[in-house]
Amino acid sequence: MIKAENVTRNLAAWVRACEPSDVPDAVRREGVRTFFNWVGCAVGGASHETVDRALAAVTPFSGAATGTVLGRGERLDALYAALVNGISSHVLDYDDTHLKTIIHPAGPVASALLAVAELRPASGAELLHALIIGVEVECRIGNAVYPEHYDRGWHITGTAGVFGAAAAVGKLIGLDEQRLTWALSLAATQASGLREMFGTMTKSFHPGRAAQNGAFAAFLAEAGFDSSEAGIEAPRGFANVLSTKQDYAEILEGLGTRWEAALNSYKPFACGIVIHPTIDGCIQLKDELGDAVNDITSVELTTHPLVLELTGKTEPRTGLEGKFSVYHSAAAALLRGDGSPTAFTDELVNDAKLVELRRKVRATEDPGCHEDAVTIAITLRDGRNLRKHVEHAIGSLHRPLSDQQLETKFHNQASLVIGEEASRRLMDLSWSLPSLSDAGEVARQSAPQVARSRDGRAAAR
Amino acid sequence: MIKAENVTRNLAAWVRACEPSDVPDAVRREGVRTFFNWVGCAVGGASHETVDRALAAVTPFSGAATGTVLGRGERLDALYAALVNGISSHVLDYDDTHLKTIIHPAGPVASALLAVAELRPASGAELLHALIIGVEVECRIGNAVYPEHYDRGWHITGTAGVFGAAAAVGKLIGLDEQRLTWALSLAATQASGLREMFGTMTKSFHPGRAAQNGAFAAFLAEAGFDSSEAGIEAPRGFANVLSTKQDYAEILEGLGTRWEAALNSYKPFACGIVIHPTIDGCIQLKDELGDAVNDITSVELTTHPLVLELTGKTEPRTGLEGKFSVYHSAAAALLRGDGSPTAFTDELVNDAKLVELRRKVRATEDPGCHEDAVTIAITLRDGRNLRKHVEHAIGSLHRPLSDQQLETKFHNQASLVIGEEASRRLMDLSWSLPSLSDAGEVARQSAPQVARSRDGRAAAR
Repeated sequence: MIKAENVTRNLAAWVRACEPSDVPDAVRREGVRTFFNWVGCAVGGASHETVDRALAAVTPFSGAATGTVLGRGERLDALYAALVNGISSHVLDYDDTHLKTIIHPAGPVASALLAVAELRPASGAELLHALIIGVEVECRIGNAVYPEHYDRGWHITGTAGVFGAAAAVGKLIGLDEQRLTWALSLAATQASGLREMFGTMTKSFHPGRAAQNGAFAAFLAEAGFDSSEAGIEAPRGFANVLSTKQDYAEILEGLGTRWEAALNSYKPFACGIVIHPTIDGCIQLKDELGDAVNDITSVELTTHPLVLELTGKTEPRTGLEGKFSVYHSAAAALLRGDGSPTAFTDELVNDAKLVELRRKVRATEDPGCHEDAVTIAITLRDGRNLRKHVEHAIGSLHRPLSDQQLETKFHNQASLVIGEEASRRLMDLSWSLPSLSDAGEVARQSAPQVARSRDGRAAAR
Repeated sequence: MIKAENVTRNLAAWVRACEPSDVPDAVRREGVRTFFNWVGCAVGGASHETVDRALAAVTPFSGAATGTVLGRGERLDALYAALVNGISSHVLDYDDTHLKTIIHPAGPVASALLAVAELRPASGAELLHALIIGVEVECRIGNAVYPEHYDRGWHITGTAGVFGAAAAVGKLIGLDEQRLTWALSLAATQASGLREMFGTMTKSFHPGRAAQNGAFAAFLAEAGFDSSEAGIEAPRGFANVLSTKQDYAEILEGLGTRWEAALNSYKPFACGIVIHPTIDGCIQLKDELGDAVNDITSVELTTHPLVLELTGKTEPRTGLEGKFSVYHSAAAALLRGDGSPTAFTDELVNDAKLVELRRKVRATEDPGCHEDAVTIAITLRDGRNLRKHVEHAIGSLHRPLSDQQLETKFHNQASLVIGEEASRRLMDLSWSLPSLSDAGEVARQSAPQVARSRDGRAAAR
């Protein structure tokens, strides 16, 4: 067990020292996939009213408009661009997941980096390196406190994310070890985000604010604004105040050899990861049932307890609430084979046929069922029973999305917002991140190809 | 015991409904004193390098420069002006204190309000009313979780302060009950600030950031950015996640009849409130000892345990660290009769004669000693013993500073930064808050009367 000594400083020293040549190819490749998936999600979420309202609030306060709001025409200063892109990338609950902690790594880190790269130009390789370091820092800090920290009620993407953003931006702008230490402590004292906000616009606020606050921590430290030497491990520092578990070995051991950044995963479905096995299994059952899907009399789910804790809404009224209803999600997957953003619209959640099927879905907790599994038992009107066991959901580390599947996911959401052609161009540009001389080009090329209509959605030409 | 039901919404309803005519004269008078003391502290701290560094970091990101940095010439957008004025008002540890919670109420609330009043003009009476409401909300939320919340490691001025700023700004800009509810929940999910940061620039960051984040919560809610209905009391809301104590009666009972805002107090000394009895007693002893102060061989303090926990630094090296050393504070009070900002300079902390006396000071915890008391026992070279018991320190609710003493405190710090004449003019303007047609005038009239020298201090003409 590593002692609570110099955790913050040793982590800062590693951030400072780590060179691109220290990063294995497989980790770098996963970094590109992390970035690619994040661009698709940020563009895909850009026309959501949550983003409209955030923009309305921040625009009057924006400074020099150096940063692009992805998937839209607007520009904001770097810190508000980080906020809004972080909101946008999470608003469809379609972003990436570090499965050991349920952190969504890219929202805080990539949103901060791309906005800062538009202010202080950086190459794609530099941004990629900082992204990998930021994700590594964020997931390791998450590992040190998960699950106790999350169980207590903290939205870990916000609380751990701010460290990732601070480390990443600090690396990109070249902070020295002392200033990186301060930046991590300035992140620690801003760590926030409550799970009570799930189901409201404020959930997406968390990764956005983590991006903004982490970048701000780095800029404060750069200006010599000093802070603690031990914001992570001190008796009244982050880990002790916000968690009952503090495993500092998770932060410091194997830095540079064991890579959490290589363990990122990408959601095939636009909702919380805990429902994915259910949606995966229900889509398989739909294909097997054909028209008999209309004869279902009951659906019994046997799941990990977290599924009901997080997504136990029996009577969702809005698309957003539908993402927190394993009942709605199962019904939509059975009736429509759909787990993409179109499965979580206000219309579908209130569709009479879907509501009827949703009310036939029951769920039972089984502490022996792991988080990535589900058993689904269906009964039909004629008395037939079907059973489907999913051991690992599609999109998990055991069944990762291929690059091709990532492209399909990207295009299915981004083309709705910026058009087919712009989406394809942006995909090519995002894959080419490691060779870009100016990473900010990705942001600037993300605007819709057609004029936006008054309701904020890209109109067909 | 009030149940955990509708706490956030009922509090929002009260904020919305409370009229100036509902506020008793004595509470309004204390509100003016709260404002007056805050202006003096914000101006007094304005030339501190902590403020210089914060300004260097935020200026490149500032939007439309509608807000004045108190005591300086610079202008920033309303949110960054709130941040910097909040930092400035706390940086000398000389601001106000709600003694039941050790919250410094004005930093988060007044810093947010005055900056917003420069953006959306408000009368002095309107600002005063919003200030009283914000302080009331903040202190009541503090009461609901103190002391367990503070003991856990939270800097309560940051965590409770953000609610006060959100409520105050929400009131000033006329949010309805629904939007005030969202603003309070947006405050809940931003509540942050760790006690580990004490002794660094980041301590002052907390009230500033609470002001900025609370104001931002109000502007987000105004734009329709929705949030929880129960950010304070939900199982995964503020009180349960950040504290083991949740006494909701402290928030809702007696609203409008029992006024926490009337219980504000003002520090006579520029350091943490827990050392005030010691400084008070040592200044009295200096007067009694005369030259014999040079013959002291030992100083024994018997104090509340919190004194050593918070200010137990035996070997401070900087003025800032001196504020966290009851040993330095006692020595400075004995040798110089001083507890004002000039007692906490780098020079004095390292002065040979003072260091010699400081090392003769011992402190013992006595759980039976209340927080506002101290017993000081001094031994002289000739064997004489003196004993001084302070039951209630000057500046406490039992011995409040008079308006005249508040003026002396204001002028002693503000005149060093903006000059004698500007300080006097600003005092008059601050006292006249209730009759000002434009509250922002206070901010605009706070600039130095003379050109600032290159090191950021006001130069004598």
